[in-house]
Order: sequence, then structure tokens, then C-alpha cells
Amino acid sequence: MKKYFHHETAIVETDQIGEGTKIWAWTHISKGVKIGNNCVIGEGVHIGPNVEIGDNCKIQNHSLIYEGVYIKDDVFLGPNTITTNDYIPSASTVDFKKTPRFKKTYFEKGCSIGANCTIICGVTIGEKSLIGAGSVITKNIPPFSKSFGNPCRIITLNK
Amino acid sequence: MKKYFHHETAIVETDQIGEGTKIWAWTHISKGVKIGNNCVIGEGVHIGPNVEIGDNCKIQNHSLIYEGVYIKDDVFLGPNTITTNDYIPSASTVDFKKTPRFKKTYFEKGCSIGANCTIICGVTIGEKSLIGAGSVITKNIPPFSKSFGNPCRIITLNK
Amino acid sequence: MKKYFHHETAIVETDQIGEGTKIWAWTHISKGVKIGNNCVIGEGVHIGPNVEIGDNCKIQNHSLIYEGVYIKDDVFLGPNTITTNDYIPSASTVDFKKTPRFKKTYFEKGCSIGANCTIICGVTIGEKSLIGAGSVITKNIPPFSKSFGNPCRIITLNK
Repeated sequence: MKKYFHHETAIVETDQIGEGTKIWAWTHISKGVKIGNNCVIGEGVHIGPNVEIGDNCKIQNHSLIYEGVYIKDDVFLGPNTITTNDYIPSASTVDFKKTPRFKKTYFEKGCSIGANCTIICGVTIGEKSLIGAGSVITKNIPPFSKSFGNPCRIITLNK
Repeated sequence: MKKYFHHETAIVETDQIGEGTKIWAWTHISKGVKIGNNCVIGEGVHIGPNVEIGDNCKIQNHSLIYEGVYIKDDVFLGPNTITTNDYIPSASTVDFKKTPRFKKTYFEKGCSIGANCTIICGVTIGEKSLIGAGSVITKNIPPFSKSFGNPCRIITLNK
Repeated sequence: MKKYFHHETAIVETDQIGEGTKIWAWTHISKGVKIGNNCVIGEGVHIGPNVEIGDNCKIQNHSLIYEGVYIKDDVFLGPNTITTNDYIPSASTVDFKKTPRFKKTYFEKGCSIGANCTIICGVTIGEKSLIGAGSVITKNIPPFSKSFGNPCRIITLNK
């Protein structure tokens, strides 16, 4: 029995989606994706293969979440959050997973990412950290910190 | 009688749309939105509830315009203009309007916003001001000024 | 005989598309566009009128490619690559091509553009150059160089 909602225009290729989760228009959820309970996935979102998303997450409109990204519980990804998984991309890439260029990215529990941020793969965004809108994240972000900018710099720590 | 055009794939939940306005593919216009005459709303645009847009505006492809944003006449929003309405977002937000974090944003008459800008809520973008592409707007922008950068800085005033 | 693939939700208004090319969901290819062989055009991409794209290119999800942009062979455009064609845009623009504000942009053979970059029109991105994610490109980029930032600055040359 179907326990989650998806808009009729969404393309959903997994059945591992938790109860109460909502998926809106023109969004593509790829094969192998796991999504927890009570999440909201906005419009025009792309979730690549095998991405794992916890409970109570909000992934806002137009966000692009690629294979190799892991999102824990209570994470907020603002509108147009752009992730990556290839550190040195090129048109000739064939199999990301066989190259050291393919790097994983972790969004830890309760972190919040402002609108239109870019996340360069290979980093961990710490628990309950807050990233300002328009930031480009190039390295690990400590838990409970606040950061912003291009490149993203920490402005307060452990507060 | 229908006086405006919308692409067959658009989702339009308001009838307050002016004559001559065009709405393109995969765009969602939410409930309570008011749009004036002779506007062009591009592809993949999201207009949130109760947004007000004047006459002769161009809102380019993939722009995200959220509740609490007010757009006057003759405004140009470049491709992928990303607005916000929650100053300190988190996945646990329930009702933006009941919190002081919800802030309004005003685009004044004739202002032009370059491509891929991010607008942090709570600001007024002044009349006929021009914002360079890729900017992150964090404070009020004076009328007739030119600005760019992350964070957006004023480079010429009243010209 | 159809030699390329397009997803059923894509809108394709040209027949000048090469063999082996794939076009994914919610993507619009405008009139007069030419696309070479073995390209991948992601989801939610917009390709404006008369754009020319070579062979073996990858244009990732949500990229916006406007009229006046020329893309050579083996080019990689990361997710949410935002191009432009009007140097000083405004809502009153009528015919870009009749104004000096309309500028062309060239992506030379084998260049790679990281995620969420903005390209201000009128520039040439040199052969096999690499642009970091989140950059705003405001001037010509030399061949074989590496660059990043807002504004985009060259960090290594001819390597």
C-alpha cells in the first residue's frame, strides 16, 4: 500500500520511500534511492542513484543531489542546492566509481543549507551547521557552526 | 474569456493573470498569485503563494519566487534568480508567517537582476537598479545603482 | 530514421541532432539548434534558438544555454550552468540581435565547467580549460588553464 505522495508528473524509480513523504512536480527519484519518513522533496528536484536521505528532511525546489551524497535526518537543503560527485569532471568520464575523482558528500543531522549553494564533493557538512545562501562549500564544515561565502568560510563555531 | 497564454505543461492555480502574459513549460504558479499584463514567465519557474507581480515583467527560466516577494512593473529577473523568505531556515520550520524569520523582499520598478543571483530575504532592490550576474544580495540596493558580487557591493550610485 | 533518444517529456524543435545523443526529461531544445553525435543533455535543460553543440558533449541537469552560445566538441557543462546573451538586460529588451548588448559566448574544445557556474556573455572559455564549481566567469579564460571564484580568476596557466 502506497504510504507516500508523489505528484503525477514526478518520475519515481524506487519503492524505498517512507510514510508521509511528499514528492512534488517534475522531480526525478532514481533507482536505489532510499528516503525516510515525513520528508518534503520540492519541484524539479533530481535525486541520483543510490542517494540516501533520512527522516524529516526538506529538499527545496530545483536541488540536484547526485550519487555519492548521504543526507541524515532533519536536514534542510535550500532552493537550488547543487551537489557534485566528480572532483575533476570532464566529458570523457565513463565510470565515476572506478576513479579516485568520485568523492562522497555527507550532510549530517540537522544541518541547514541556504539557497543556491554549491557543494564541491568530498566534504562533510557538520551536525546542525548553518550555511548562508549563495555559498560555495569547498571543505569540511564543523558541527554547530555558521558559515558563508565563496569560498565558504566559518564565521562562528560551536554556537 | 482567457486573455493570457500558458503552456500545456504549466500548473496555474490562480486566475489573476493579466492580458498578454505568457507562461512557459513546467512552470508552477501557486494560489493567490497576482500577475499583471504583458509579462513573460519562463520555463521551470516556481511562483509561490500570494506573490504579486506588476506589468511588463520578464521572469526568466528556472527562477524561484517565494511567498513574501513583491515585484513591481518592468522588472527583469535573469535566469535562475533564487529568492528566499526564511532568514534562518531549518527542516523543522512549520509556519513561516508566524515567525520573525519570515521576511519580505521587494523588487522596485524597472530593476534588472542578472543571471543566477541569490536574494537573501528582507531587502528592497531599488528602482532601475542593475545587479550583475552571479551576485548574492544581502542588503538593500539603492535606486539607479549598479552592484555585483558575493556579497553584492554597490559600484556606482545614482547613474 | 530516428538515431537519437529523447525522453517523452522533452520538447524538441529541431531535427539536427546527431546519432547516439540522449536528451532527458523536461528539457527543451529550441528551433535551429544543432547538436552533434554522442552527446548527453540532462534533465530540465533549456537550449535556446540556433545554439550549436559539437560531438561528445555532456550538458548536465538544469543548464540554461541561450542563443549566441557555441559549444565545441568534448565540452562538459556541469549541473546548473547558467549562460547569458544580453550584457545589460532589462525587461524592455525587444530584439537582442539588433543591439550591441547581445554578445556571443564560446566554449572551446574539451573545456570543463564545474557545477553552478554563471557565464557573462561575450567571453571565450579556452580549450581544455577547467573552471571550478560556483564560479562567475566575466572574461576570457586561456586554454589549458584552471580558474575559479567570483569573479573567476586564473590559478594555473598552460598546465
